[in-house]
Amino acid sequence: MARISYVNGRYLHHAEAMVHVEDRGYQFADGIYEYVAFYNRTLLDGPLHWRRLELSLAALAIEKPVSMAALDIVVRELIERNGREHGGLYVQVTRGVARRDHPFPKQTKPALVMTICAPKFPKPQEISQGVKVITAADQRWTRRDIKSVSLLANVLAKQEASRNQAREAWLVEADGRISEGSVSNAYIVSKSGELITHPADTHILGGVTRDVVLRLARKAGIKVSERPFTLKEAQSAAEAFITSTSANVLPVVKIDDAPVGTGRLGDVTRTLQTLYATHIFKQTGFQF
Amino acid sequence: MARISYVNGRYLHHAEAMVHVEDRGYQFADGIYEYVAFYNRTLLDGPLHWRRLELSLAALAIEKPVSMAALDIVVRELIERNGREHGGLYVQVTRGVARRDHPFPKQTKPALVMTICAPKFPKPQEISQGVKVITAADQRWTRRDIKSVSLLANVLAKQEASRNQAREAWLVEADGRISEGSVSNAYIVSKSGELITHPADTHILGGVTRDVVLRLARKAGIKVSERPFTLKEAQSAAEAFITSTSANVLPVVKIDDAPVGTGRLGDVTRTLQTLYATHIFKQTGFQF
Repeated sequence: MARISYVNGRYLHHAEAMVHVEDRGYQFADGIYEYVAFYNRTLLDGPLHWRRLELSLAALAIEKPVSMAALDIVVRELIERNGREHGGLYVQVTRGVARRDHPFPKQTKPALVMTICAPKFPKPQEISQGVKVITAADQRWTRRDIKSVSLLANVLAKQEASRNQAREAWLVEADGRISEGSVSNAYIVSKSGELITHPADTHILGGVTRDVVLRLARKAGIKVSERPFTLKEAQSAAEAFITSTSANVLPVVKIDDAPVGTGRLGDVTRTLQTLYATHIFKQTGFQF
Repeated sequence: MARISYVNGRYLHHAEAMVHVEDRGYQFADGIYEYVAFYNRTLLDGPLHWRRLELSLAALAIEKPVSMAALDIVVRELIERNGREHGGLYVQVTRGVARRDHPFPKQTKPALVMTICAPKFPKPQEISQGVKVITAADQRWTRRDIKSVSLLANVLAKQEASRNQAREAWLVEADGRISEGSVSNAYIVSKSGELITHPADTHILGGVTRDVVLRLARKAGIKVSERPFTLKEAQSAAEAFITSTSANVLPVVKIDDAPVGTGRLGDVTRTLQTLYATHIFKQTGFQF
């Protein structure tokens, strides 16, 4: 089946999915996005993603390009037309096309683009044996709570991870605290079993997977502390892991080449992996 | 005459100047740009802009899309086809089109887009009577020396300026120092006649107009100190001004509604305006 993308009201062959060079997304990174996984043609945690999309738009004073009800219809249609059972839905909204000038243009319609991609399931080995992360300076702007396409700093950090055969780069702020990964949230489990992750303030993107996993953790009686942790704390933690829409829950067994805890998948992480897999199954019927 | 834009090897009617939705400029702000003024069809300080373009590309490890000699030919042709005597040339280079994934794609050709726009001359009143600036928190990433399209923080600051009927927003860092404006460099002149501006490190974009103006100032015997200054210092300065490709040299007579010095165009600023106008005239034959 051909890959079909949606651009401002039209379903197009992906190769013909084009936007104008003066779309403010292209010239100013003046836009936001969501990436939503779907299993058995059902979006995972759709409402949570749409709520965040609305928050990101509101933070930048970008109008909704279509109603949320219309968005829902387009999404179903697009998944249908791509003929994929499982995969990823990428949604981007920008402030639209206008003569290049920094301030918000008047009477410009926001642009809406959607693409469908193949699922990015973590490898079985990553799930069971864990992944390596490196650390890198957090070079991003101060509003990471907005899911904007202003992602150049994230790109550079992720590239640095790739270059070092690492799954992810954990970003270290000037004060030594770890905010999150370049494309995922970061967690440690202390030796006393406390689950620690940065609070959802302007320093991090409040991940949808993060929200769900913290809820599942609390329900399972795990002590959760939403507070920043330092690299030093991470280095002496019992366990560490990352979460994201693509990673689900992935154990981190190495930080900058030093093992975390035993260097193997730990109990808390394994519990959360199981709970999260059940969460996916309950919503979509999909089993890993 | 129709507006013609250049996109990846083709001269197109501006309305048809499109890029793919998976151009990394659109999805990741993974690209850089230059904005060059031209007068009498001659680029002002072209070589300085091209040197900076090469530095920005090198900093992001993006290949040159064409040789600098070829770029020069395309620029001339594009100005010719647009039939404009004076105006602005916008050049954007991105890492190119690839399936969405943060790390640098392999074997992707960089994208090159150019547009021509009407001149953005400052108004005579702004030149002679000065402009107002507001101050705003500097929310940008830590690599402002790269002229990247990751401009969302700049957009938000400039919008705030517009909303307050100000020409520009001066960006204040967490430590109270002013880095620069959202689209221009920032300067003050102390009561003893010392010209002070932030050094060209990673905190600011090293403006081409900045380079030229500082050279002209030194040649004219003005004492130049490249060091950060605070808002407090600016508030008690004798003069203040901004420079950019669109603003040239514009006096700042109000910061957040408090007058700077006498609240009028000062001697040092006037001298630099004259020297800069002569600089433009010598290179392009254009007289304001």
